[in-house]
Amino acid sequence: MSKIALTQTVQKGGCAAKVAASELRKILSQVKFPAPHRELLVDGGLFDDAAIYKINSELAMVQTLDFFTPIVDTPKLFGRIAAANSLSDVYAMGGRPKTAMGILAFPLATMPESVIVDVMQGASDVISEASANFVGGHSIDDDTLKFGLSVTGFVHPDRIWTNAGARVGDVLILTKPLGTGAITAALKRQAVREDDIQDAILSMSQINNALDFFSDELMGAIHAATDITGFGLSGHSMQLAKASGVTLKICFDSLPQFPQLIKFLEEGFLTKAHRSNAEYTEDQMDSSCLSPLQRLVLHDPQTSGGLLLVVEKHAANKIVEALQSQFVAVSIIGDVVAKRTHAVLID
Amino acid sequence: MSKIALTQTVQKGGCAAKVAASELRKILSQVKFPAPHRELLVDGGLFDDAAIYKINSELAMVQTLDFFTPIVDTPKLFGRIAAANSLSDVYAMGGRPKTAMGILAFPLATMPESVIVDVMQGASDVISEASANFVGGHSIDDDTLKFGLSVTGFVHPDRIWTNAGARVGDVLILTKPLGTGAITAALKRQAVREDDIQDAILSMSQINNALDFFSDELMGAIHAATDITGFGLSGHSMQLAKASGVTLKICFDSLPQFPQLIKFLEEGFLTKAHRSNAEYTEDQMDSSCLSPLQRLVLHDPQTSGGLLLVVEKHAANKIVEALQSQFVAVSIIGDVVAKRTHAVLID
Repeated sequence: MSKIALTQTVQKGGCAAKVAASELRKILSQVKFPAPHRELLVDGGLFDDAAIYKINSELAMVQTLDFFTPIVDTPKLFGRIAAANSLSDVYAMGGRPKTAMGILAFPLATMPESVIVDVMQGASDVISEASANFVGGHSIDDDTLKFGLSVTGFVHPDRIWTNAGARVGDVLILTKPLGTGAITAALKRQAVREDDIQDAILSMSQINNALDFFSDELMGAIHAATDITGFGLSGHSMQLAKASGVTLKICFDSLPQFPQLIKFLEEGFLTKAHRSNAEYTEDQMDSSCLSPLQRLVLHDPQTSGGLLLVVEKHAANKIVEALQSQFVAVSIIGDVVAKRTHAVLID
Repeated sequence: MSKIALTQTVQKGGCAAKVAASELRKILSQVKFPAPHRELLVDGGLFDDAAIYKINSELAMVQTLDFFTPIVDTPKLFGRIAAANSLSDVYAMGGRPKTAMGILAFPLATMPESVIVDVMQGASDVISEASANFVGGHSIDDDTLKFGLSVTGFVHPDRIWTNAGARVGDVLILTKPLGTGAITAALKRQAVREDDIQDAILSMSQINNALDFFSDELMGAIHAATDITGFGLSGHSMQLAKASGVTLKICFDSLPQFPQLIKFLEEGFLTKAHRSNAEYTEDQMDSSCLSPLQRLVLHDPQTSGGLLLVVEKHAANKIVEALQSQFVAVSIIGDVVAKRTHAVLID
């Protein structure tokens, strides 16, 4: 254990430190961006953190960028989580990461250098697990620690996973449990020790490499995908439903959750994103059958959360089986129905 | 003009805020990095900010990353300079940038949102000048403004410019004047107004796209290249000489400089890098014919500095002519001689 508890060195941790998406969109609408080149298959749009550039008919490049302040106390674990989180954007689009560059802001005056070593070692280990290369980066002397990666990878242009391909009858699969928002909020407020939330830390440190577990047949059964991060299951489900022109029906009782989540929500360990995600999805999600507490599970912002895979019904069980060895909580959580008034229905 | 003078909002601007390279190398030597994959043609090494990954025999991907705190007061100009500086790493390796993602840390509580709009507009304009795409990014709420880009581009794997290809008899060409270190230090200490250093600001905002001015014949005459940034002409020349196993002979009187440089150096507008660059090159550079003041010109850290091109003698004048329309100060500054005791000789 490091003597410095990293979460106590920052005011806002993880995704809570992001500039709110709605605010950013409003600001950036005033910038005159030129039309994107036609090689851009996925445009990062208004400062989204992932884009795809077509190199030729068989190869496209994925580029992503993500960084944040510490959400756990142990430097090596922070490095692992930040790396897994950054790599996730490539996996979520069906790509394989190849190179990663570090973004490091470090308080040289107040933090021992060993913290850098540990953060980097954690990141390097996870980048290796992803069979990618840690190829360098840029560091800056700053008041608070921040770390993340810009990752590039490759994907076949005809096999890009987007959030626009969901079809009526498809099945929804979530690869990781929900709850990292409230759990890391409890850690930051010192209501729990890092040792007591090892399951959440392990999950956040895990790379979202589902690809390597899929046969060609299973690959063909994936119609859409997204990773669950700051907008929570509610926000990312809503985005996917709207992009695909369908409604997602999610069974609350099927959702994988970390065991401590409900307790921490009950005790009020909330982030700004719990509220903003509720507001963001207010008009588009029917969760009338849930208690206010249950609703917070859906709005819980995830750091390095799981993939939401939208798959052909006949392949759903095979996909769950294929992933179980690596993603212990992987679950079928609902299905896709024809578009209704609400983009997301909870039952 | 913005009402906020950006340079007054940060303690350390531009490259001065970087973690010192020697310090970082010492720290990172304690991290156990795995061996890089064989596809890595240029490894970012110990946190260097540029790497090259070979895709196939005809295509390699260049990835770079750079960001810093404001070095000028006007937000749009800061955005332009930060973008040109980040794109430069791709050009310096003979590559063409294709996609750029923004790295934005922004003090929402203390700075008006219009600053974001202006920084982004400046960056977007320069990215367009480079025929690249601004494809997104990541933003964070932070105490001080920081901005930069992670850029990816492409280069033919057989036509990568490195700092290892200089040959005896080659000629040295520098594309931009020296002096941005002392000049921006003077601006930060309010000894000069932004309007009075327009030449330096224009130069820092200019993309290092030399490629588009070269015929195939001229392209074939380029043996090595590097961009002049934080280590100054002294540090980057030394690195190139050592990597190529030669000595660079630089004629001091031929160096392009901004007219105010000597005055600002005389008045003591120095950065930490003036000293660290002197120390870095102490044993490897013979500048005994220079005054201490002249030596500072060589050590002046550049932000978005020029390219140092090492070219075949017979093509040198043609290359200078080809670049003159775009790079008004482009100059032949010396030549390459067989390796001697010192990596760099000044006469």
